[in-house]
Amino acid sequence: MQTSEQRPMTTFRVARDAPPGSVRQESSSATAPAAGPHSFEGRLLRALLHAFGDPPVQFALWNGERVQAGSEDPVATLHVPDRATLIQLCRDPDVQFGELYSVGKIQVEGDLGRLIEVLYQGAARPGRNSIWALRRLGQWLHRRPSNTLHGSRENIHHHYDIGNEFYSLWLGSTMAYTCAYFPTPETTLDEAQLAKFEHVCRKVQLRPGQHVVDAGCGWGGLALYMARHHGVKVTAFNISREQIAYARERAKADGLDRHVEFVEDDYRNIRGSYDAFVSVGMLEHVGVENYPALGELIRRCLKPTGLGLIHTIGRNRWKPMHRWIDRRIFPGANPPSLKQMMDIFEESGFSVLDVENLRLHYAKTLDWWWRLYEQSRDQVARMFDENFVRMWRLYLAGSRAAFVTGEMQLFQVVFAPGTSNNVPMTRQHLYRS
Amino acid sequence: MQTSEQRPMTTFRVARDAPPGSVRQESSSATAPAAGPHSFEGRLLRALLHAFGDPPVQFALWNGERVQAGSEDPVATLHVPDRATLIQLCRDPDVQFGELYSVGKIQVEGDLGRLIEVLYQGAARPGRNSIWALRRLGQWLHRRPSNTLHGSRENIHHHYDIGNEFYSLWLGSTMAYTCAYFPTPETTLDEAQLAKFEHVCRKVQLRPGQHVVDAGCGWGGLALYMARHHGVKVTAFNISREQIAYARERAKADGLDRHVEFVEDDYRNIRGSYDAFVSVGMLEHVGVENYPALGELIRRCLKPTGLGLIHTIGRNRWKPMHRWIDRRIFPGANPPSLKQMMDIFEESGFSVLDVENLRLHYAKTLDWWWRLYEQSRDQVARMFDENFVRMWRLYLAGSRAAFVTGEMQLFQVVFAPGTSNNVPMTRQHLYRS
Repeated sequence: MQTSEQRPMTTFRVARDAPPGSVRQESSSATAPAAGPHSFEGRLLRALLHAFGDPPVQFALWNGERVQAGSEDPVATLHVPDRATLIQLCRDPDVQFGELYSVGKIQVEGDLGRLIEVLYQGAARPGRNSIWALRRLGQWLHRRPSNTLHGSRENIHHHYDIGNEFYSLWLGSTMAYTCAYFPTPETTLDEAQLAKFEHVCRKVQLRPGQHVVDAGCGWGGLALYMARHHGVKVTAFNISREQIAYARERAKADGLDRHVEFVEDDYRNIRGSYDAFVSVGMLEHVGVENYPALGELIRRCLKPTGLGLIHTIGRNRWKPMHRWIDRRIFPGANPPSLKQMMDIFEESGFSVLDVENLRLHYAKTLDWWWRLYEQSRDQVARMFDENFVRMWRLYLAGSRAAFVTGEMQLFQVVFAPGTSNNVPMTRQHLYRS
Repeated sequence: MQTSEQRPMTTFRVARDAPPGSVRQESSSATAPAAGPHSFEGRLLRALLHAFGDPPVQFALWNGERVQAGSEDPVATLHVPDRATLIQLCRDPDVQFGELYSVGKIQVEGDLGRLIEVLYQGAARPGRNSIWALRRLGQWLHRRPSNTLHGSRENIHHHYDIGNEFYSLWLGSTMAYTCAYFPTPETTLDEAQLAKFEHVCRKVQLRPGQHVVDAGCGWGGLALYMARHHGVKVTAFNISREQIAYARERAKADGLDRHVEFVEDDYRNIRGSYDAFVSVGMLEHVGVENYPALGELIRRCLKPTGLGLIHTIGRNRWKPMHRWIDRRIFPGANPPSLKQMMDIFEESGFSVLDVENLRLHYAKTLDWWWRLYEQSRDQVARMFDENFVRMWRLYLAGSRAAFVTGEMQLFQVVFAPGTSNNVPMTRQHLYRS
């Protein structure tokens, strides 16, 4: 058996002009007929599949038995090596699939990306998944550090400070770790990240000489782009020490350190008065309970004629973060629904000018990241270990599937003080070449 | 004294390329110094002005006394002919200003549009207007027919069935009674209404042969445009008998009656399965309590690959409709905040793709309507009476001021079923000429 995690990168086929979700791994023999559905294991697994909306997925057990929900060709086969693994999976599939996959106990034969897509699609079917929903809720209530000033530092450190070198393997030259913007199907990742920077700059109508605050600036790519291409001064905040160190070095190397100040501090300590407020990929870590205070902070620091933009992963309707992602990847992250986001704007008197949902752009971005990641998998294995390689693969594949299936959204919201008429009449200026 | 309502149309100056809010009436002698601030009337009026945030407005009383809040040049002078009028105004200024202006008891010297703007701006100042806010709330609780099936018919009849001839005097050739879209400052009203139709069609990506449902179709302009220019079949709903009769005649005259069906019925009775759902200017009359049911209705009638658009007057944050407007003009109307609008989408599993705030386009639209209205004021007086002329002028001037000052918003929201990938990647296609 050749499982996907052992296959070389060349087995990815990418059709550039196909719709997002077109990254494919070659499927080998995932179409073997199911057998032995009446054993105890078979009944247990059928119940599990049913709770997930009967997705076209096959289990291959240690005893040769194969179990699947219907007669549809499975997109992937999950190899379960022993009964203990099976019990562990069924006990809490949301978390344990990730755990067992990461340590190599469960192996996936076939298309990992499609596997997670059909799991999301099954769970989205009306009336499904109710027994797990309850359990998820209970476990959500016992979760880890909240986004207090200290909690945020802990949470952010967990994800972003695992090494700039690791991220540089697969984020591309911009080191932008947020959804890119692909104006055409031919746009490359690096081009799309620059196009995203430009899209953001246009949305807040930057003019030379203005002063911008960037809340949660990552490795500083957007801040540096703004200074270089729009002649503005930028003050950029981030609590990730590694990212700030990297950004400062880059600013110096690019001769932009007099135009961009990188501050290692929490967004809650932003002071001053700015022509534009931008925040790309920070809101996910802010916590819904802090939205009114964030709105109040922006109200204080944005000039009456200023424009603001928040770019964030979101949801069509709130639900807790996937528990495995919360445990292993992004502790404390919480993508909001638009309704929740309005708590930032409504109480502080802002006017929402423009909302753009870039979900399919994130699917494409994650196509790229996953592909580049697989090209570097040997380096990643040397930096960490094989378990980390699998864990991070699952995270990238799962995130991609979440955006492909509509499980997750990407919102860019532009806003202004409610009494300001310094707002664009149309959005034509965003689309000039 | 020459009051604005007696002046001929030629006193409007319109700078076409100036920002919205540039319609001006010539101000005559509104700058006479204030006097007698210590009389009982003076103190009462100062208290009134203070409750409205000390706007630059002057009162001229029957006894020659002039009262204003500060030293700023007033934008207009309100002539109060006797003590009874003054008491009536102070008792409930929100409603009574409209009532007294309509019957000609209070006359406005100066710029009526600017007058209402400074009133809105004053009221928007933090900490102002609290004593009136309480009173408003109380009176809001005792209001008229809600938007039940029967109540909606009554409410809609009140406003839309006062005569197609009247509306045709000032709406322009499209008879579109909703915010237009002005791609350039030179765009005329008729062009801007057609541009709005096209903007809507592009946002829902119409293709020839598709079937569209139009909920609350007004005089049918958009439905006919869709059939003519995009080759689609349209089923259009409206409970205004006069509007439906007009729309049917127009469809016949244009040879489009086999492509567009006008149904005199409530949106709640929409049945069928459509490629697109559009609703332009109906949500204001739906009532927030009916939003989840509206979402559910759209979910039932929109194909899994369909796109929807709702165009509505809205607010940055909910507050009750202006009470005079609710009483005299639009009973039962209730423009939502975006947060409230999300009740349509979130529970029914829709994904919000695009929100555009066209507030300043509505200010421009109302500039046009008001101007055309004043050109027809003699005809309006013959159709109704002078009180109606003044009432409707106040409504148009007040609405324009509400959009100029940010008191009101105009939201266009595009949405799709949450699992559909049949959504545009970018919005570039909206801006092709």
